[in-house]
Amino acid sequence: MQFTLADIASALGTEVLGRGDIVLSGAAEPTDAGPDQIALAMDPKYAEGIKDGQARVALLWDGADWESLGLEGAVCLKRGKTAMPLITKALDPGMGVAPGVHPSAVIDPSAEIGEGAKIAPLVVIGAGVKIGANATIGAHVSIGYGTQIGDDVTLHPGARIAHGCTIGDRFTLQSNAVIGGDGFSFVTLDKESAVEKMRGDMADGDDAGAVEGSAHWARVHSLGGVEIGDDVEVGATSTIDRGTIRATKIGSGTKIDCQVQVGHNAIVGEHVMMCGNVGVSGSAKVGNRVVLGGKVGVSDNIFIGDDVIAGGGTNIYTNVPAGRAVLGSPAVKIETEMAIRRELRRLPRLAQTLRDLQKTVSKLTDKG
Amino acid sequence: MQFTLADIASALGTEVLGRGDIVLSGAAEPTDAGPDQIALAMDPKYAEGIKDGQARVALLWDGADWESLGLEGAVCLKRGKTAMPLITKALDPGMGVAPGVHPSAVIDPSAEIGEGAKIAPLVVIGAGVKIGANATIGAHVSIGYGTQIGDDVTLHPGARIAHGCTIGDRFTLQSNAVIGGDGFSFVTLDKESAVEKMRGDMADGDDAGAVEGSAHWARVHSLGGVEIGDDVEVGATSTIDRGTIRATKIGSGTKIDCQVQVGHNAIVGEHVMMCGNVGVSGSAKVGNRVVLGGKVGVSDNIFIGDDVIAGGGTNIYTNVPAGRAVLGSPAVKIETEMAIRRELRRLPRLAQTLRDLQKTVSKLTDKG
Amino acid sequence: MQFTLADIASALGTEVLGRGDIVLSGAAEPTDAGPDQIALAMDPKYAEGIKDGQARVALLWDGADWESLGLEGAVCLKRGKTAMPLITKALDPGMGVAPGVHPSAVIDPSAEIGEGAKIAPLVVIGAGVKIGANATIGAHVSIGYGTQIGDDVTLHPGARIAHGCTIGDRFTLQSNAVIGGDGFSFVTLDKESAVEKMRGDMADGDDAGAVEGSAHWARVHSLGGVEIGDDVEVGATSTIDRGTIRATKIGSGTKIDCQVQVGHNAIVGEHVMMCGNVGVSGSAKVGNRVVLGGKVGVSDNIFIGDDVIAGGGTNIYTNVPAGRAVLGSPAVKIETEMAIRRELRRLPRLAQTLRDLQKTVSKLTDKG
Repeated sequence: MQFTLADIASALGTEVLGRGDIVLSGAAEPTDAGPDQIALAMDPKYAEGIKDGQARVALLWDGADWESLGLEGAVCLKRGKTAMPLITKALDPGMGVAPGVHPSAVIDPSAEIGEGAKIAPLVVIGAGVKIGANATIGAHVSIGYGTQIGDDVTLHPGARIAHGCTIGDRFTLQSNAVIGGDGFSFVTLDKESAVEKMRGDMADGDDAGAVEGSAHWARVHSLGGVEIGDDVEVGATSTIDRGTIRATKIGSGTKIDCQVQVGHNAIVGEHVMMCGNVGVSGSAKVGNRVVLGGKVGVSDNIFIGDDVIAGGGTNIYTNVPAGRAVLGSPAVKIETEMAIRRELRRLPRLAQTLRDLQKTVSKLTDKG
Repeated sequence: MQFTLADIASALGTEVLGRGDIVLSGAAEPTDAGPDQIALAMDPKYAEGIKDGQARVALLWDGADWESLGLEGAVCLKRGKTAMPLITKALDPGMGVAPGVHPSAVIDPSAEIGEGAKIAPLVVIGAGVKIGANATIGAHVSIGYGTQIGDDVTLHPGARIAHGCTIGDRFTLQSNAVIGGDGFSFVTLDKESAVEKMRGDMADGDDAGAVEGSAHWARVHSLGGVEIGDDVEVGATSTIDRGTIRATKIGSGTKIDCQVQVGHNAIVGEHVMMCGNVGVSGSAKVGNRVVLGGKVGVSDNIFIGDDVIAGGGTNIYTNVPAGRAVLGSPAVKIETEMAIRRELRRLPRLAQTLRDLQKTVSKLTDKG
Repeated sequence: MQFTLADIASALGTEVLGRGDIVLSGAAEPTDAGPDQIALAMDPKYAEGIKDGQARVALLWDGADWESLGLEGAVCLKRGKTAMPLITKALDPGMGVAPGVHPSAVIDPSAEIGEGAKIAPLVVIGAGVKIGANATIGAHVSIGYGTQIGDDVTLHPGARIAHGCTIGDRFTLQSNAVIGGDGFSFVTLDKESAVEKMRGDMADGDDAGAVEGSAHWARVHSLGGVEIGDDVEVGATSTIDRGTIRATKIGSGTKIDCQVQVGHNAIVGEHVMMCGNVGVSGSAKVGNRVVLGGKVGVSDNIFIGDDVIAGGGTNIYTNVPAGRAVLGSPAVKIETEMAIRRELRRLPRLAQTLRDLQKTVSKLTDKG
């Protein structure tokens, strides 16, 4: 990949200071940059780094004195961080799939694939699949029959989309992720399972001890698919199970990290962010703009309101009202959890204080 | 897929009320159902939904007045929930692999595959593999040499079974799951590792601070395979590692959700249920009919007795006797954990109460 | 695979007692061993097991009386456990890929592959890839353009290495693991996200309640690759994301289990051990010789010093100094956490004691 500073300035809609014509091959952090790389230094703290590195051109903070930094050319940006999407998109060479369909791909004749597709070797696409324009599909991807996918999607090597799913535009699916696996749904036919019985007992106010129950699990097949909106991204090896009767749903703009599990029948809203290792159990509802930090767990059949934020490692067992920030296991308001954590560290001392106080009071009562 | 209400009634061993001959193409929730879909409404709470939807036929609760719901035909069921396995099995069109072996599959000539197999494109099957009758094998599945698999198995796209594994009948392996990866087993050759030394110190009653130790990990290869019983299901991207000398074992009837890890040498009993994101460490033993909720962790070399239930997010560090229901990190009896959680929320207040009480007592002793 | 006891003794650099010429086909635990298997019994506790089994030869503890155990031949070892890497390596038949390149593999003509390669069916290798000598590459592996890999690597079926990564010698990548997926990096362009705003408020000492913010996530593309040292192993379905501008780094000798996520820009030191289900967030730094137990979580942008040990289930939210052993959520020193856990179990009783004491004191003050 080759480009010039002028190309970058044009992509960012701003002007070049100094030379815009030096041919570049990539970007780097200021100290690591070679003479053919643009240094990304959108904060004054990187000034020294630029001098240490070999960059001839750089992206700089607003008002930077680029000439005194020893540069031959620069682009200055008002809000450096917010330029990152545009800069990195302009510089991303992509995964390198050649235009057209590789002859080793196995594509059912009834599949309809839009213009501009780049389909890598050994892809398998089933009967009746419809894919929009400009799809980039990596090696070893498989797509099951009847699935419909929008425009401008990127499916990385080994990603799986099962049959009967519906997916919007600009979908990004990372390697070895799985959309539309069967839901984890089993019932016992002979009598209640031990878990059902225990939940029933607890709801009745009885003790929560283990109980006898059936464990002869009969499989409920998953007839629903998965429906995914526009601008969704799903990380490497993440899994979104298909629904039982209706589809599992992921709203537009939602971003899902690696190693995440979303169970069958879950309904996830728009613009949600789920970080790594999150698990959302079956039939849970997650509102719009919810943020779930790393390793958050959400129990089945509960409701997380709009704009909820859950810190890393939180286990959510019960409904959370809209707008709440929660933390801990079980999840409580973040300020409550912070107070609990402060006292927890002091708990051994607190217990000792109580024992001492008991003795003191005991002496007082003896006296009295 | 096309069927009639009479077909469903026949599959369920029950009778049709009204018209059984309407041709249907699928099932749906009552409000979503179109005129060619059967509404699944096995509870009176769905009565309104049927009226809102367009279904002409439905599965209903026992004794339902189907005609007043505006339906043309119905099947009434005594225990709706327990009918779900049969209903959904009857309606599941499956993953759509054509009968026979796709010409792009790479199958070693010494592999023996039973009658009725459906093998998708680009499957790889190694030398000496034996597979029973009626296997359905999705795209990009690989099976290592010498592995033996029973009848009526379903392996979804991208699933991996390594060499030297033994698997029973009716096995279901979801996409990108891995059976028989190498165990995570390393020893230090020069001296004890820091973890071994720390565990030794703690067993001796010494402090548990960090200690110096070797970190030059030498790999122990995994010579054992994985042995899996009948009627087992393993979810998408889950991993079951092979044993060191003998096989890692999964008992018959056990169901494992997505994103689950079972370590090398683990022995998992029959009819166990492991929900999403569970991790069972190496050489752990898990009894029969155990239920591990989402994100449960089980330490290495410990024993979980029969019929244990562990709630979501529980970390099990030590043996759990049979029949116990546990929760929390570390795992304790569920009723103990519920009591702890109640008090934890009040802990900041409790600490304040104690501090106040200390002052009061201090004044009393001053007086006295 | 066929070998003799003399072959094993030669691999271990030690002498044969009795017959070294019996032809063997594998190894087994003492009670399971058949007449053509070597029993692994490096501890006197296995003496009975040998008599119960059918082994004719065995690996025994130092000074064992092999003849009285009914064996025909034996090798005695001073430190049995430390012999396991050598023994198991000698006995490991590997994954059975034939020498050379399978004709179904799709390898770009510009890729350079060293001598002694074994490349399985349906592998895809991109343009400009360089792989050293003696690579073993399983079915359905894909390697993106420009990636460079050292000598003696083993890549299991379905493993993915993206474009632009650099990997050292003796790398082992288990099935369906993913190296170089895109980082989970998004910014909001219109205004701060709710999470950024909340973190800012908390840093300012304000309440940590949920706040309004943007959730219109714009994708930051990942231009950096992944750099991995020598002697690294990564488990099945684990994921290591590529960096934003510079590479995500994994130091030499580091071992990573299954279901582990390492986020973009993370820098992981040498000889680190990460057990199953660990999650290391983006831009975290993990020192040398760190051990992270199962399910440990590490927050983004924090620093874990050298030689830190974190017990299973620990959530690390803030920097940890070198040499510390931590446990719990949030992570604290292991001895602190053990003390907290002891008191936690007694917390309900402690709370009751306090309430009782309050009443006692109340009576005393009433009296006074």
